[in-house]
Order: sequence, then structure tokens, then C-alpha cells
Amino acid sequence: MKLGMIGLGRMGANIARRLMRNGHEVVVYDRDADAVATMASEGAIPATGLYDVHNLLAQPSKGVLGFGKSQQPAIMWVMLPAGGPTEQTIAELADMGTRGDIIIDGGNTFYKDDVRRAKTLKARGIHYVDVGTSGGVWGLERGYCMMIGGEKDVVDHLDPIFSVLAPGMGEIPRTTGRQGRDDRAERGYIHAGPAGSGHFVKMVHNGIEYGLMQAYAEGFDILKGKNSPNLPEGERFDLDLVDISEVWRRGSVVTSWLLDLTASALARDEKLDAFGTHVSDSGEGQWTVEAAMEEKVPAHVLTASLYARYRSRVEGTFGEKILSAMRFGFGGHVETTKK
Amino acid sequence: MKLGMIGLGRMGANIARRLMRNGHEVVVYDRDADAVATMASEGAIPATGLYDVHNLLAQPSKGVLGFGKSQQPAIMWVMLPAGGPTEQTIAELADMGTRGDIIIDGGNTFYKDDVRRAKTLKARGIHYVDVGTSGGVWGLERGYCMMIGGEKDVVDHLDPIFSVLAPGMGEIPRTTGRQGRDDRAERGYIHAGPAGSGHFVKMVHNGIEYGLMQAYAEGFDILKGKNSPNLPEGERFDLDLVDISEVWRRGSVVTSWLLDLTASALARDEKLDAFGTHVSDSGEGQWTVEAAMEEKVPAHVLTASLYARYRSRVEGTFGEKILSAMRFGFGGHVETTKK
Amino acid sequence: MKLGMIGLGRMGANIARRLMRNGHEVVVYDRDADAVATMASEGAIPATGLYDVHNLLAQPSKGVLGFGKSQQPAIMWVMLPAGGPTEQTIAELADMGTRGDIIIDGGNTFYKDDVRRAKTLKARGIHYVDVGTSGGVWGLERGYCMMIGGEKDVVDHLDPIFSVLAPGMGEIPRTTGRQGRDDRAERGYIHAGPAGSGHFVKMVHNGIEYGLMQAYAEGFDILKGKNSPNLPEGERFDLDLVDISEVWRRGSVVTSWLLDLTASALARDEKLDAFGTHVSDSGEGQWTVEAAMEEKVPAHVLTASLYARYRSRVEGTFGEKILSAMRFGFGGHVETTKK
Amino acid sequence: MKLGMIGLGRMGANIARRLMRNGHEVVVYDRDADAVATMASEGAIPATGLYDVHNLLAQPSKGVLGFGKSQQPAIMWVMLPAGGPTEQTIAELADMGTRGDIIIDGGNTFYKDDVRRAKTLKARGIHYVDVGTSGGVWGLERGYCMMIGGEKDVVDHLDPIFSVLAPGMGEIPRTTGRQGRDDRAERGYIHAGPAGSGHFVKMVHNGIEYGLMQAYAEGFDILKGKNSPNLPEGERFDLDLVDISEVWRRGSVVTSWLLDLTASALARDEKLDAFGTHVSDSGEGQWTVEAAMEEKVPAHVLTASLYARYRSRVEGTFGEKILSAMRFGFGGHVETTKK
Repeated sequence: MKLGMIGLGRMGANIARRLMRNGHEVVVYDRDADAVATMASEGAIPATGLYDVHNLLAQPSKGVLGFGKSQQPAIMWVMLPAGGPTEQTIAELADMGTRGDIIIDGGNTFYKDDVRRAKTLKARGIHYVDVGTSGGVWGLERGYCMMIGGEKDVVDHLDPIFSVLAPGMGEIPRTTGRQGRDDRAERGYIHAGPAGSGHFVKMVHNGIEYGLMQAYAEGFDILKGKNSPNLPEGERFDLDLVDISEVWRRGSVVTSWLLDLTASALARDEKLDAFGTHVSDSGEGQWTVEAAMEEKVPAHVLTASLYARYRSRVEGTFGEKILSAMRFGFGGHVETTKK
Repeated sequence: MKLGMIGLGRMGANIARRLMRNGHEVVVYDRDADAVATMASEGAIPATGLYDVHNLLAQPSKGVLGFGKSQQPAIMWVMLPAGGPTEQTIAELADMGTRGDIIIDGGNTFYKDDVRRAKTLKARGIHYVDVGTSGGVWGLERGYCMMIGGEKDVVDHLDPIFSVLAPGMGEIPRTTGRQGRDDRAERGYIHAGPAGSGHFVKMVHNGIEYGLMQAYAEGFDILKGKNSPNLPEGERFDLDLVDISEVWRRGSVVTSWLLDLTASALARDEKLDAFGTHVSDSGEGQWTVEAAMEEKVPAHVLTASLYARYRSRVEGTFGEKILSAMRFGFGGHVETTKK
Repeated sequence: MKLGMIGLGRMGANIARRLMRNGHEVVVYDRDADAVATMASEGAIPATGLYDVHNLLAQPSKGVLGFGKSQQPAIMWVMLPAGGPTEQTIAELADMGTRGDIIIDGGNTFYKDDVRRAKTLKARGIHYVDVGTSGGVWGLERGYCMMIGGEKDVVDHLDPIFSVLAPGMGEIPRTTGRQGRDDRAERGYIHAGPAGSGHFVKMVHNGIEYGLMQAYAEGFDILKGKNSPNLPEGERFDLDLVDISEVWRRGSVVTSWLLDLTASALARDEKLDAFGTHVSDSGEGQWTVEAAMEEKVPAHVLTASLYARYRSRVEGTFGEKILSAMRFGFGGHVETTKK
Repeated sequence: MKLGMIGLGRMGANIARRLMRNGHEVVVYDRDADAVATMASEGAIPATGLYDVHNLLAQPSKGVLGFGKSQQPAIMWVMLPAGGPTEQTIAELADMGTRGDIIIDGGNTFYKDDVRRAKTLKARGIHYVDVGTSGGVWGLERGYCMMIGGEKDVVDHLDPIFSVLAPGMGEIPRTTGRQGRDDRAERGYIHAGPAGSGHFVKMVHNGIEYGLMQAYAEGFDILKGKNSPNLPEGERFDLDLVDISEVWRRGSVVTSWLLDLTASALARDEKLDAFGTHVSDSGEGQWTVEAAMEEKVPAHVLTASLYARYRSRVEGTFGEKILSAMRFGFGGHVETTKK
């Protein structure tokens, strides 16, 4: 198929590459002309702007007998930072779009924005598809795990794209009991439901990811702390975190890809001196907590994981000063200042 | 009555003072001779050591016809740091004690230590009473809220002491529905049960205290943060925490003594610049969590309050480095170091 | 002053009563004609609808020399369930309003709705004031603690109303260090800032309230559980929660109005058999968590308190089935079904 | 080697089988004679009691030239429920043991018990080794992931046993950067340190396991809840959890063995009707929290995971009644009883 890729950051560029490797034609555009030139040198069709993208897509594909430009709907994959840039770009594509065009948002968009956009675009005859992707920098090589929201016909129409972007079955053992089920899940992508559902599922995925990461983080903190001066001397163990992270990869219950990454990081540098303690969060963790609250689902762990990141990014909080002030008030406990 | 006070820190000294003001005789001892001298100048009977304390107590009280030293049991209140110092002192007092002596531990002892000690001392005919006290520096003036564990007869025998240390009814409105009930609770002290139960109740009191404090701390943090640069400019409020803490004291649902202290601290210095962000914890919070786990009672709030204090005392955690390392691993998110 | 009260539920009716007791004239309206008649029998001016409210308010007050109906701005206090009913009513009042009218929302409105409404109404020359009130059923007698958002001039203009609704200084000890400060806080109300800030402060108040309540709840759970069969027989205490809740009211650090209520409830029925375990939450707890996340402030305790309520309202969660299924998967631990 | 296996539950029996398959001789004993007979039919040497186990082990191995019974130290693996049964058995084995014997505790023992026992046994010349094993019912087939504590010489001496019980390298990709390191970790077992450290590492492993499980549980709860009547009709998605759990196995960041198990359970029955909502916990989660507190390490997620299990096992809590009683007190909110 022929598809436009707008946004050639690491994700957009690699998705375009994986599509080209699998025989698709990709029209590329980015504000950064160098990024466009690089992709062009790898075989992509360079575009000079959004209008040009649309124009180039409306031309019949190579080797296909043309039957009138206007009859060919443009498929445009937007891979930009969520929020303003994505919103603005989609609005422009919609303005220049023609009936039947398909706009794919592959970024980290808030799913309620998808729902809204799909409704607006539908009124103009333009289709909207949201794709939540997991896999990060590893996607080019391993394939992208994709959660897709949109109209059934449209998602089916795009199947040649999704099927090559996905990891495929690979060597991962099959789950028993899936006979007769949609095999796309086994090949690494699903049609989750209507517009917004793709990003919703991806959002919860990230919420879980935070929880998993925090569980490991606390565990390793406790292992490390077993040698801390907070403990009486006779009660300490000086544990080898490099070997522990490795052995857990092998037959234990906590085996996971995140543990693989941890073992790898520790093997390179067991003190992790290269890493800081300020931990960022993208919006998905927060949105997951909001979704939990809307549904009245208790989500202690996912929320605590998010808060641990907030706390990691400040020296101290005003709340802690409040605590110190109270303690001083009732007991004359004078807290020393942090410095 | 005549009572020995061992340990003349702020708590011990003030308890001794309050007892003397109410007509009791107090034999005092502390490793710090100056502390003993000060109390002696205020009317206390100075002792030179533990043995001397016991000796002086065995003498008949003023105005009481003596009927043999050995017949007068010594009442000894130990007010020392929990753990080693208290343990050691009680062991020594027990060794020199005689049948019928009463040892009171008024410190912050772990209740399981009380249970153990009471059993050991009982075998020697010595009575053990544990007194959890709340009220801190305010106790001399306001009276001490006391939670007492021990044998019924012994606690009753000591009532002249407890009744004057307690705040009394004061002007606090009475709770309806208490007719016919033990009025000691209304006067500010209770006999909670057998040895250990006094400190157990006090321990849970402190666990609750941590939770209450953290609830206010988080609330004020959110009020303060409403003016933070994390928010878009149009969505900020610059709130007056001094006035907010004051107004909540007046008819709101969150009125409390801890709020009074907070309002007072903020009125003195609304930025709390004098206070640091390192917040200590005494053992009680941890013991409360242990008790919750033994009972299989979920205690999310009390535990999170304790953990917030742990986190306040370090620059960053190894767990946070683990998070950063994982993020780097899957996404190439490079976390900058903290400094 | 003359004021319209729209919504005569417990809160609206009692606010109207307290205003009338203090010499204000109140025009009342409610969909329930009986509620209107009741208030009329107590001296209020009955209205038959929103338009009638506005009309009656435009008439000069008793004992005031009229200077033309149209010159008297109407002050209308809306005291309805937040969301639809309030939104709809304010829209209607705005449509019939005239330049200079003041609309007060005294309900539990989400503060962002206040911000939006204030902006819309301002364009029409109508003033909007949001009043967060705490004090519940006790307000008629004790006065209402009020947190007010709106334009300074308008809030000042309404001072005769707020000053009588507030509790006043009463017998609550004054906080030192407030000399020279706005004394409204000491009398139980504050002007928190622009529109929305009143409800924002009230919202955080409720968030704190949840945290405080949960801290006590967990503490009493642990006290109660100390006699549970989860513990070895020798490690149990059968504690008297009635006396404990009472004694803590007297000189302890955890003294509060919420504790007063707890002591009162336990004195009536120490097993609390009259009460269920399903605990509702109004929106404020959730909004407080959302605010914390927007500001990137960790709020472990306030959030856990909210989640404990969510969990209290269901028999079991799907998440728990997921846990059971995993346990079965890796260990053959068969979890019995709940019934 | 020749080894005694005491306790032929699922774990003990399978470990014995895996040892025999790899050429070791195993003397077996269990209170259940049938269990012994079964193992004997599979090639094990049956024993009639602890003394018999020790006796049979002291005999020279098959094919080994005997050089006096007394010179061959017995290796005895105890695989019994932690606590009483294990404690009692080890005490008996120690009493009948001879200098140089090795007692292995492969159960879920609290690591402080290991430390204590090792010290006691050392005084008698008996070696103590603690082995934490993960892998559960899958171990016979996949091998056991083992974390071992004890003296270096002794652990090295037992290597022929551990190396065959472990999974071995298998097809799991190697972690880069481990060149020159102890390769036992890659083969699925480690010597963690002195006695107790094996169970300590295993304990933290289980603490992490709880956190990971809860993260998934909450995530799936939120996915499921997206179709709940708590949401407005237009905001629901009816998501296919079977396919979501499958697709996440393929290239996503949350890939793990626990997710494999979840996908498998959901594929069999997407409503998980066979599973209840009461979730048990073994002691390790609690001990991990205790360890965190001893070290002053915040462990929000691991603890919340444990508490979620506590809450899952009761209909309601007394704390929730306290909340309801308070709400009634301040607002007249009458909570209906649960049934």
C-alpha cells in the first residue's frame, strides 16, 4: 500500500522503514528537512509539506493502473508528540482531505481526544484510526505491538500495513485455548474497538508498566538496603544484584522483559552510576488513574507508582515541611533542614 | 503517694513536677546530676542511683506512721528512651526489688516487650505497669492523656497518681451515651487491659497520628501546588495558607488539634522556611504496620504515611535508578542525574 | 440584605433560616412546593419559580427608600446538587438576569465549572461567586465554615451575608501571630481568591477529610483486630473502643471533631451494628486526586482513602479473580469462590 | 550424590524426581507412607523415619568403595511447611546428626530463622543451607530457579545437586556484559551469601511477585470496568480481555511469564468464573514489608499489593463501619447495611 508518514522521529522513521522493507510505499514528511532527506535516501518518497503528502498519496501506486487521482483515498499516519502538534496536524490534514481519506494517529494521544476527533472527521467523510504502539526502540527489529481503534472496515482495509508492522508469531509459545479466535492478537496486533479504544488499551498497558517497574524498583531497593547502615551490623547481607537479576530470568515467577532490561543494565554497571533518580512520567499513568476513578476501580498500585515518580523529581515537598512544623508544635522535635 | 522517677528528660521532669504540684512525693534520679539538682531545688527528693531510689522509696512517707521499711512497696516510674536504656534499668530495678514493688514503664516501649517483662517480673512478685502517654510538651500544663496496661488491682492502687497526671474533664464537651461507664476515660486516662495493652493502644494512637498528619500535609501540598509552574498560567490560584488553616479551625469537618498546630506554625511563617523536609519517625508507626499485618488488616493510609517519611529522608533511592535504567532500556529515555 | 435561596434541601433551608434569624430577607424557591411553604411559614418570601425569585429580589428591600426596581441587583444563592441541576439553574438565572446581578453557587461544584461560568457570566455583566461550605447539618447551630471565590468588590459587598452565616470567633482559642491579618478567617470565612478558588479550597478540605477519616478507620480496625482469631490466643487484647475513643479526646495528639463523632457513635453502639460497610464518596475526593496529579504532587494517603471506599462498595473485583487465576497458574493454588 | 528428601509434597517429590532423573540417589521420607511408596516405585530409597533417613545416607553410595559409614556426611533436604513442621524436623535431624552433616531447608522459611539455626547447628559441626526456590509446579519440567544461602565450601560441595535442579541456560537469550562472571546465575541458581540470604532473596522475589500481580490485576480491572454501568453510556468500550492479554505477550513492554499465565487463564474462560475473589498470601509478602521497614525503604507498591489481598478476604471491615458512623455523624449520610 501507499501511506504517508508525518513525523520522522525515532518511532515514525522506524515504522516507515519497516513498512518499506515489507514492500509498502511511504511518502514522508517532517519539519526537519534532514530527516526527510535521510528517509528519501532509504527509498521513501519525500514530501515538502502536508499538502504535498496528500497530493503524492492521491497518485496511484506504482504498478497499479491509475483510475483517476481523486478516487484514491490517502492514508496518512501522524506520528508526532501528543497534544498540540498532533491536534494541529490532524486539523490541517482534515481540511485538505477528501472523502474516504484515512488519518491514523500513532502517537500517545489521550483516548478521549480520539473519540472527539473521530466524530468530527466522520462528519466530513474522513476515517480516523488510533494506534497505540508498544515496543519503543526495539520495534524496527522486533516489530510493534499494536492496539488499534476505529471502524471495522477501515481497520480491515489497513491490515496489510498492520500485519507487517506487527512482530508476528515468532518463537513465543502459543497460548492454548485460542483455537478459532482472531489470530491477529497472536501476531501482535488487535482491533480493540471503535476510535479511542486503541489508545485506551495502550494507556492501561502503560499504567500497568509503571506498576511492574515500581514493583521491581522496590524489590531491588530492599535487596540493596539489606546492606545499609540502617541495619545492625549482624543483620546485613551484601547481595549481588547483578546475579540476582540474572537468576530471576531463569525459571522464576517474576521473569519478564522488564527484568531482562534490568539484568542488562545491572550487568553493565551494578551501581547504576550512570542513572539519576529523577523519573519522568508520560501522561498515560495519570490518565489510567483518572480512568480508574471514573470507573470506581481501586488502583492502589498503579497510582502509588505514579506518585513515586512525582516524589523522585523534587528535593522535598511543602507537605514535608508541614509535617516538620506539626512535630515541632506538639513535641518540640526540631527537624534539621535538608542542607 | 511516694514515687520514684527515673529519667528526668522533658517528659520525666514534667511528670514529676505535675505530681509534686498535686501533693505527691517524688524521688528523682537521672545520670545527669544537674537534672537531679534542678528537680531537688523544686522539692523533689534527690537520689544518687537506682539503688538509692529504691532505698528512699522503701522509707515510710512523710506523715505516715512507719510500720517497717520492708513492708512498703516501691513505686518506680521509668521514663527513658525505649529499648536498651529502659530494658537495662528495669532489669536492675527488678534485681534490687522486693515483693510487691511496682515498676512503671512510661516510655515508648514496644508492647511485646511489656508482655515479656510483666511475665518475668511476676515470677518475682514484682508488678509491671505500662503507660502510654500522649500530650508531649503540653502535658505539664494540659495534663497527660494516658493509656495504661497492667493488673487491675495494681492500676487501681496507682489511681491517685494517674488521676492527677490526667487532664481531667476540663471544658471539653461530654460525649452523650456514656452514662454508667467508667469515668476515667472522660478524665483522660484508661486502664486498657493487661500489661502491654497500654503501649499497644498508644502505639495505634501514634499510627493514626501519622495518618492524620500526612492527610493534612498532602492537602496543604495541593493547595500550595495550585500556584506551581507545573500548571498552565490561567489555571493557578495563589492561595493564602495562613487563612485557610485558620478558617478550617472554625466549624469545618477537619478541625483538630493538629490543625491548630498547623495554623499556628503558618501564622508565624507562612513559607515554613524554618523547617526542613526530613521527617523522622519513632518506632510506633512501624509497629502499627506490623500489628496490622499480623491481624491481616489493610492499613494503606497508615503505611503510606510512614513511607512518605522514609522517602523524605533520602536524596533519592536506588529503586529510582532502577526505574531510570529500565526506561533507558526500553525507550532510550535518558534520565539526567540529580545534580 | 435581600437574597434569593434556590434549593431548599437541608443545606439551603438552614442557610436561609440562619440568614433570617440575623435580619436578612430571603426569597425562597424549590421544585417542592411543600418546602417553599414550610419556609414561608417561618418568614421567608415564597417564590413560584426562578423568574419570580428574580422579580421579587428586584423590588427594594423593606425599609429602604425605593429608587427604581431596575437599579437593585438581585443576589441569588443556588444550593442544588452539583452538575446538571446547578448548571441548568444558573443558565436560566443568567438568561433572566440583569447587569449587576450576583449568582452564588453554594453547592459542591467542581471548581473548573466555576471558572468557566464566571467568565461566561462576566461577559453579560453578571457576577459569579462560589462558596464552599463545611459544617453540614451542624451549620444552622454552629455556623458555616465558608471558603469563597469571586471578585473582591462583590465578595465585600456580600459581607453582611457571610459574616452572619459564619460561626464567629466563639470560644475557640485564637492563633497567635495573626495580628494585623484579615480577621474573617477567625470568624469562619475567607475570600480565597477569584471565582473557583472557594470550591477549590473546599475540595481539598474534603480530600483531607477522607484521609483523616481513613486514618482513624484503620486505627480502630487494628484495635478491634487485636482480638481477632487471626492472632495466636496469647497475643490478643480485648480492647474497649468506647473508652479509647473517649480518652483520645482528652489531651492526646489525635484530638479532633471527627474523633468526637467517632466517640459519640461508639458510645451509642460499640459494635456499630447500625452501620454498613459500603462507604460512598462525593466527587471532591476524586477531584482532589486529579488536582494533585495536575500539579505532580504525590498524594498517597488521600488517594488510598478514596480507593478504600471504592473497594468497600463491591463484593469482589475482577482484579482479584485475575490474581486467583495467576496463582492457580503458577502454583496450583486453587482459590475457593467467595460463596 | 546421595541425598535425603524429607517431605514428599508436590515440591519435595518433584525435586526428588528431577534429582533421580539426573543420576542422583534419593532417600525419601514423608509421614504419608503412600507418598513414600510412590517414590520408591519410581526408584527412590524408602525410609521409615528420620532416623532411618540418616542411617541410609550414612551408607556409602552405590558403586563407591566404602570407607566407613561414619565418615560419610548425610545430606538431608527438608521440604516441609515453614514454621513448626520444619523447625521440629530440623531439630530432630540435628540431634541425630554427626559432624559434617548438611541440612538443607528448601521450604519458605523466614530468613531470620535460618540465621538462628545456622548458628546453633554450626556449634555442633552441622552445616545449614537455605534454598529459596521459585518455579512451583513447573519446576520438574522447567527446572527450579534457586537462591542459596550458606557457607561457600558447603554450597560448592552441593553443586552437583543444584546444577541439575536448575533450569540451565535453555533458550533464554544471554545478558550481555556478564563475561567473566559466575555462570551459575545464567544456569538458574546463585549462591546469595551466608545462611539466610537465600531465603531473603527468595522472600523479596515473592514481594515483587505480589506487586507485579497486583499491577496486572488493577490494569485488567480498569479494562473490564470500561464497560461498567458506572460510566455514561457513550463512554464505554466493551474490550476483549482475551485478545488484549495475548497481544501484550508479543513485543510489548509488559511481557512476562505472569502475563502468559493470565492470557492462558483468560483464553480458557474470559470471565474467570471458576475463580473466586478471596486471594491468599503466604508469609513472604509480609516479611518483605517488614524488611523494607527495618531498612527504612519506602515500599508503597509491595505493601498495597499485600493489603489488597487482606481486603479481598473479608466481606467488610470494622474500619468501614467507622467511616459510615462518622459520615452519619457529620452529614446525616445514612449508609445502608451491606445486606
